[in-house]
Amino acid sequence: MVSGAMAKQISQAVHQRYVDISPGHPRYHSLMMRERLVEGVREGIVTPAGLIAHGRGEAFDYLLGERTVPSAELAERAAACHLLEARDPVICVNGNAAVVTGEGILHLAEAIPAKVEVNLFHRTGERMEKVISFMESLGDVEILGRDADCLISGIASERSKCCSQGIGNADVVLVPMEDGDRAQALVDMGKTVISIDLNPLSRTSRTASVSIVDEASRAIGNMVGHVHELKQDEKQRLNSLEGFDNRENLREALQEIERSLSDH
Amino acid sequence: MVSGAMAKQISQAVHQRYVDISPGHPRYHSLMMRERLVEGVREGIVTPAGLIAHGRGEAFDYLLGERTVPSAELAERAAACHLLEARDPVICVNGNAAVVTGEGILHLAEAIPAKVEVNLFHRTGERMEKVISFMESLGDVEILGRDADCLISGIASERSKCCSQGIGNADVVLVPMEDGDRAQALVDMGKTVISIDLNPLSRTSRTASVSIVDEASRAIGNMVGHVHELKQDEKQRLNSLEGFDNRENLREALQEIERSLSDH
Repeated sequence: MVSGAMAKQISQAVHQRYVDISPGHPRYHSLMMRERLVEGVREGIVTPAGLIAHGRGEAFDYLLGERTVPSAELAERAAACHLLEARDPVICVNGNAAVVTGEGILHLAEAIPAKVEVNLFHRTGERMEKVISFMESLGDVEILGRDADCLISGIASERSKCCSQGIGNADVVLVPMEDGDRAQALVDMGKTVISIDLNPLSRTSRTASVSIVDEASRAIGNMVGHVHELKQDEKQRLNSLEGFDNRENLREALQEIERSLSDH
Repeated sequence: MVSGAMAKQISQAVHQRYVDISPGHPRYHSLMMRERLVEGVREGIVTPAGLIAHGRGEAFDYLLGERTVPSAELAERAAACHLLEARDPVICVNGNAAVVTGEGILHLAEAIPAKVEVNLFHRTGERMEKVISFMESLGDVEILGRDADCLISGIASERSKCCSQGIGNADVVLVPMEDGDRAQALVDMGKTVISIDLNPLSRTSRTASVSIVDEASRAIGNMVGHVHELKQDEKQRLNSLEGFDNRENLREALQEIERSLSDH
């Protein structure tokens, strides 16, 4: 199936199922996301393991009150500063990220501007092509990933492949929903790694230079706003970066969850 | 595909993928479970939504330290007492439960003894047949569910169907991984509902008469032990039940998670 038709089909299948649920329903967004991912599996964009990972995220989001907590807002702002300050910023996209917030990623990439590279944990030629053409169908941004000519050092097998034009040469990499090994490898290569991961205790969150503990579509949406605001204001960017302590901020995210539990 | 072959195929596919991971690997059990569920989706036993639900459970299990916490042990003991005291105990099975701990459920059913009924949230004739024949392939216990002749009151559509011989007439129902609506409906019908749900804040956990906050295969395994120990000791059973406060015990489970977070 061609990419545009695929994106349309995912939207339509989800819409048909939820046409009776009003967008005002408190769980509307979460239910829509779930259905989009299930459709994504049917289309071969999302893996079954990606659904399990999404479920883990849902649990942490539930504990965070399904909202952007103040520490996440701070991390998103710091991330926007890093992306604007970067020489060569790249946004990585996997199957889950494409389905959950593919359009948001394109808006963010255009606003910065940053490159976009599809990079899959469960990488096959067929899935690469599906995710890339799905992203291409969402907008007019070049999507890297087809011609991998570079390796992420310290990572075994297919998972290490990337593009020199993209992740290879990047100094700042935004990785929504990355695995711990690859986040560590990117940090070891000297890159500034910005993670989006709802589990503040995950290895990815503990490894990243800036750890955003927020749901990906909310995080990306907020970052677009921060980028627009900070784009012309270098002084504020540098101030924000100086005042940001990732370790302290992650501890704050954990405390948000503790508070939410003790409120029950 | 016939049921026995299906069970064998799930085991083999998982074994082939994990033959290089030693059973001593700290995440072996969790990784095996994940793969069994993914295979279960391929076989049509587990739904994609079931994978997301499993992921939510994984996150809470991670926060509990992937172990049976003391409050869960108490709930499992109380559950064993209820099942032994029951006039007509029934264990419900859905796709996830079948794949995660189908054999354990049969052992528990034989030990009590209790009836076993397959009851699906995403119910179709085809899936019912697959899950029932999968369970039948695991042992020599009669599996109810084919001939639904009864409704769970207060629940809409296909999800309300059940067997009068099973859930319909049961006084005590064990529901591993049940949704909140149905747990509530069973309580409203006057039944003692024992839930197994890793989220202590879920509606199912907050609705059930006995809420076990533990991973299903560990919970079922522990309950088999409790049933064997308590089977001949009515006095101890009544003492255990008298000393058990579900609301207090659930609060204890929440505190376990809070403690685990503050240790980081």
